Amino acid sequence: MEQSFLAWLKGRVRQLPGVAVGIGDDAAILDLPAEQQLIASTDAIIDQVDFVLGEHALSDIGYKAMAINLSDIAAMGGTATAALVTLSLPNRRATETAAGVYEGILEAAQRYGVAIAGGDISVYDGPLSISITLLGSVPRGGAWLRSGAREGDALVVSGSLGGSLLGRHLRPIPRLDLARELRGLVDVHAAMDISDGFSLDLDRLCAASGVGVEIETAHIPIHADAVARAEQTGRRPLDHALGDGEDFELILAIGADDWVQLSQTRPDLGLVRVGTFIGRTGLWSRGERGLRRMLASGFIHGQRRDGASDHVPAPSTVGQQGTPANAKKGTPS
Amino acid sequence: MEQSFLAWLKGRVRQLPGVAVGIGDDAAILDLPAEQQLIASTDAIIDQVDFVLGEHALSDIGYKAMAINLSDIAAMGGTATAALVTLSLPNRRATETAAGVYEGILEAAQRYGVAIAGGDISVYDGPLSISITLLGSVPRGGAWLRSGAREGDALVVSGSLGGSLLGRHLRPIPRLDLARELRGLVDVHAAMDISDGFSLDLDRLCAASGVGVEIETAHIPIHADAVARAEQTGRRPLDHALGDGEDFELILAIGADDWVQLSQTRPDLGLVRVGTFIGRTGLWSRGERGLRRMLASGFIHGQRRDGASDHVPAPSTVGQQGTPANAKKGTPS
Repeated sequence: MEQSFLAWLKGRVRQLPGVAVGIGDDAAILDLPAEQQLIASTDAIIDQVDFVLGEHALSDIGYKAMAINLSDIAAMGGTATAALVTLSLPNRRATETAAGVYEGILEAAQRYGVAIAGGDISVYDGPLSISITLLGSVPRGGAWLRSGAREGDALVVSGSLGGSLLGRHLRPIPRLDLARELRGLVDVHAAMDISDGFSLDLDRLCAASGVGVEIETAHIPIHADAVARAEQTGRRPLDHALGDGEDFELILAIGADDWVQLSQTRPDLGLVRVGTFIGRTGLWSRGERGLRRMLASGFIHGQRRDGASDHVPAPSTVGQQGTPANAKKGTPS
Repeated sequence: MEQSFLAWLKGRVRQLPGVAVGIGDDAAILDLPAEQQLIASTDAIIDQVDFVLGEHALSDIGYKAMAINLSDIAAMGGTATAALVTLSLPNRRATETAAGVYEGILEAAQRYGVAIAGGDISVYDGPLSISITLLGSVPRGGAWLRSGAREGDALVVSGSLGGSLLGRHLRPIPRLDLARELRGLVDVHAAMDISDGFSLDLDRLCAASGVGVEIETAHIPIHADAVARAEQTGRRPLDHALGDGEDFELILAIGADDWVQLSQTRPDLGLVRVGTFIGRTGLWSRGERGLRRMLASGFIHGQRRDGASDHVPAPSTVGQQGTPANAKKGTPS
């Protein structure tokens, strides 16, 4: 398949000014804007672990592989420039699989202005696997880390949460445009994208920052999919908003005064304040019954850790993000 | 395995000044020196395609995964800074496998001054796969491309060739030190590392440059392993030097006058001139029987393309680089 496929791919790949040398040499060469740092994210998705071949369209799978990496770039407040795409293709129908996956990859690349600058293709006796490294830039010293949240900061989310399993998880919207806008408007202290569940990822951000957080659960924006999903599972829509993964919305820590101004001047951004970072560690929910300790729920290595005292998941919710229960996955970066 | 393994890994990973943000956030942040371009190489190796688990030590496999990417950086005249490592681990003995592979990865990182800045780990029902993206820098506009060879340039190789299958292929020496030295000494017009076979890779470099080459076959430095391998196969040592892959030496195009000076002043670099780039396309060998057309031989997608008129490989040489005959592999970048 190799030669004809690469010829097809080279014809499809966009030439973008940031890519000095793209597909066809020993390595890619990129130009970064002056006074910027390089940002690099890598994430792999694998059949039977992160998606199910046959149930999901190849183009959706390719699109998702790009979007989850773009979301990581957005979560750091960065700009995406180019992708390196490594495909491991099952022997059977390798060329058709590669072409189908690339349809989605190229669609995402087009939509978000990213070049495909290189990669690697193997055909093997194994499941379809797509590993993408996204490269881009971020103003020097200006990356939004998980570790920057401070006591008193507003806890803000970029959109409504829960139930992505009903389909949204295949075509997530990386918040690159929002990140770009926010950078010019406000000093974001910390950020992270929601991949494993709002409360679980928030717990990680708090741990990295050495703070806790008080969540106004009534203010959490609940996606219509979370309501629909709750009808299937018998759990509350809020539980799905708190614990479902792959929303790919941003969790943001913004100074309280900055938040007041931002929310008044730019309500169009769709940001919602859902709590306040506090000095005392842990997740705390402020609801109808006062302040209560909240345990993080979400998707960890193929099993759900649902410790919230007010819901205990049924066994059938194990690995409910379309993921087999024995799948394990983690991200060092 | 995830949490304890990542804790182990974070303790083992070196902190290097070029890495502003490493393992543990949504993406890695790197500092590039001023006036440099970003260089990025990605290459995956997979059990039963590129190595054989059980026959090869895990640490060797990890080392190789790093070294082949470092070699791509050297082939562009670049400097390596940081690696992103994606491991896909078979379910059985996943943690031991990860630790074993990382021993070799960290050894190579240590030896070549490269940080592990991030990555991804999955456990799945499939063969061990290691995908590494190497990031680094190259002086602006100064990357050594495949396309820069000119008529009259000296064809130079960085070391002796052939027979890497006997063991060298697991611990190749990426020519980063040589690349760094050469950059200060001479204007390299084109370069490429030998992964699939000297004559095959040279053919690709010629095609990219729009030139041909006249090879002085008697000058080709033949590795002792090529001689030993020839005793096994019944082919000539020269055939192994021309067609065996995974030497990871550099093919260089250097202006004729520059070469004369370089060879006189720095014989210690171990460079050998083996021919001259010419305007007429194709590979031509100048040997005892005069000038003859030479067809490229080497490793293509799991089968050897041995077109040289003076040797026809036995079927047993198919995929002889430790690679099953049905394996297919290619590198867009």
